[in-house]
Amino acid sequence: MKAFVTGAAGFIGSNLVDRLVSQGHDVIGYDNLSTGIEKNLDGASASGRFRLVRADVLDLDTLTRSVEGCDTVFHLAANADVRFGTEHPRRDLEQNTIATWNVLEAMRRGGVKRIAFSSTGSVYGEPEIFPTPENAPFPIQTSLYGASKLASEAMIQAYAEGFGMRGFIFRFVSLLGERYSHGHVIDFYRQLREHPDGLHILGDGRQRKSYLYVQDCISAVLLALDKAPDQPTNIFNLGTDEYCEVKDSAGWIAARLGVSPEFTYAGGKRGWIGDSPFIFLDTSRIKALGWKPTLTIRQSVENTVEYLMRL
Amino acid sequence: MKAFVTGAAGFIGSNLVDRLVSQGHDVIGYDNLSTGIEKNLDGASASGRFRLVRADVLDLDTLTRSVEGCDTVFHLAANADVRFGTEHPRRDLEQNTIATWNVLEAMRRGGVKRIAFSSTGSVYGEPEIFPTPENAPFPIQTSLYGASKLASEAMIQAYAEGFGMRGFIFRFVSLLGERYSHGHVIDFYRQLREHPDGLHILGDGRQRKSYLYVQDCISAVLLALDKAPDQPTNIFNLGTDEYCEVKDSAGWIAARLGVSPEFTYAGGKRGWIGDSPFIFLDTSRIKALGWKPTLTIRQSVENTVEYLMRL
Repeated sequence: MKAFVTGAAGFIGSNLVDRLVSQGHDVIGYDNLSTGIEKNLDGASASGRFRLVRADVLDLDTLTRSVEGCDTVFHLAANADVRFGTEHPRRDLEQNTIATWNVLEAMRRGGVKRIAFSSTGSVYGEPEIFPTPENAPFPIQTSLYGASKLASEAMIQAYAEGFGMRGFIFRFVSLLGERYSHGHVIDFYRQLREHPDGLHILGDGRQRKSYLYVQDCISAVLLALDKAPDQPTNIFNLGTDEYCEVKDSAGWIAARLGVSPEFTYAGGKRGWIGDSPFIFLDTSRIKALGWKPTLTIRQSVENTVEYLMRL
Repeated sequence: MKAFVTGAAGFIGSNLVDRLVSQGHDVIGYDNLSTGIEKNLDGASASGRFRLVRADVLDLDTLTRSVEGCDTVFHLAANADVRFGTEHPRRDLEQNTIATWNVLEAMRRGGVKRIAFSSTGSVYGEPEIFPTPENAPFPIQTSLYGASKLASEAMIQAYAEGFGMRGFIFRFVSLLGERYSHGHVIDFYRQLREHPDGLHILGDGRQRKSYLYVQDCISAVLLALDKAPDQPTNIFNLGTDEYCEVKDSAGWIAARLGVSPEFTYAGGKRGWIGDSPFIFLDTSRIKALGWKPTLTIRQSVENTVEYLMRL
């Protein structure tokens, strides 16, 4: 495969690049390094099979030139900041929706036919069915982030149908693991390193969430590209067969750090506007292709804390 | 009500403006007159309760200044050209998705809290359930137009949730009636006026479609604003309790014109890329509020032909 990875220097992107390179694929990474970290790509760069283009997905000309000659695009570049969406309402439109249109248009112009896209379980809004399957009832969006990812999914589907592409859409739960860079584990970790006696938790701590280990996620994405049915659009939920409460996760993090903080809660069912009080995805579809996660949620949380301790 | 109508000079917009003015509401219209026709607004202008702003929805500053002081936005401005989407793939992104974001952002800045949006049954893609309800299984988009309307819906929902607005989303079938300006009735009408002996039909003519009279649509929209439950997002399908085949409609048009053409077919289940072979919406939700259409599909088609004959 000649792969093109947007957001290559980020958490998921750099782990994907490493995996692809280790499997002998040629990879072009594309990252504006606004949140990505170039050091994440040191190993890949040393392999001789990787090259980084330092540019923005909003720069359609550079994107088009860069993607030419590749056969598969992994579009991971995104504003992944769900929580502060209402503070900068244009960011999701630009960095997710318009950016994805740019990626599709660059592909169309360059004759690239296959795209794998990192969507999110947030597109289900606040679903009524758990675990939530890919064909759950038509959802209502509760966050600008979810809305922009749904918009991106929709454009990928329309391009696949209209221009003979193949679109692979992966609706992730939150990912954990090496190079993890934002989310509740890092927030709790930092709080506890600074003040081991107390931990303030957004919402009532009873929000039920599912998490997936980044390496398990990457295995699922690559398996799907290999084994999914030959149709324009394939959609897969990616997550574990379990969920935890936010306060469970807080307890595991504290235990791994050897501290016993008092928990205080901001209160309310949601941690912030657009937070989903319960995320738990039905992953039967990807499991039917032969995938299963190797780490439990607790193992992923502990693994992530250990990674942060090594930094 | 102090109403703001984007796309005010268009088919649906100008009929809506007339209705609102006739009910005693103050109305500001907003239209760049790229496809809208100023003459459609002559009656409204004469009423003294209507004012037109000639500007583009992509001009956020003018939009923001213009919307201030209104309480309800009817966002109808759009690229409504489903059929040629793949010939200009940026148009739906710009004129539908980004334009809707602009409208929402202008409302947020101007403190306007209520929006009614003209979405489309096309957001169901090629559904498996007929008539298709609002909570049909999570669809896959088959056209750039449908994708851009879904993106718009999603942003409206997220703005409603995040900024305390109320969003009313109406998924229309195709509309017919006075000031109708594009679609199969006009195509067939023009063909038959020029060559009464033959009519060429895209697809196999067996595509099953539902149509709604524009006045019935407007009644439904205004009823929903008045009677819908007090929640951030309300979604309503709008259509009739019946469908016809494209060749039935062709027959009614020919009969009304008094001609007997030979039909020829391009063939295939779809008229064009992204055409849905079967559109038939479940309208129980709006009917539960007390609405029903006054014209059948055949009456709407005939009414539209008569309107075209009067031009």
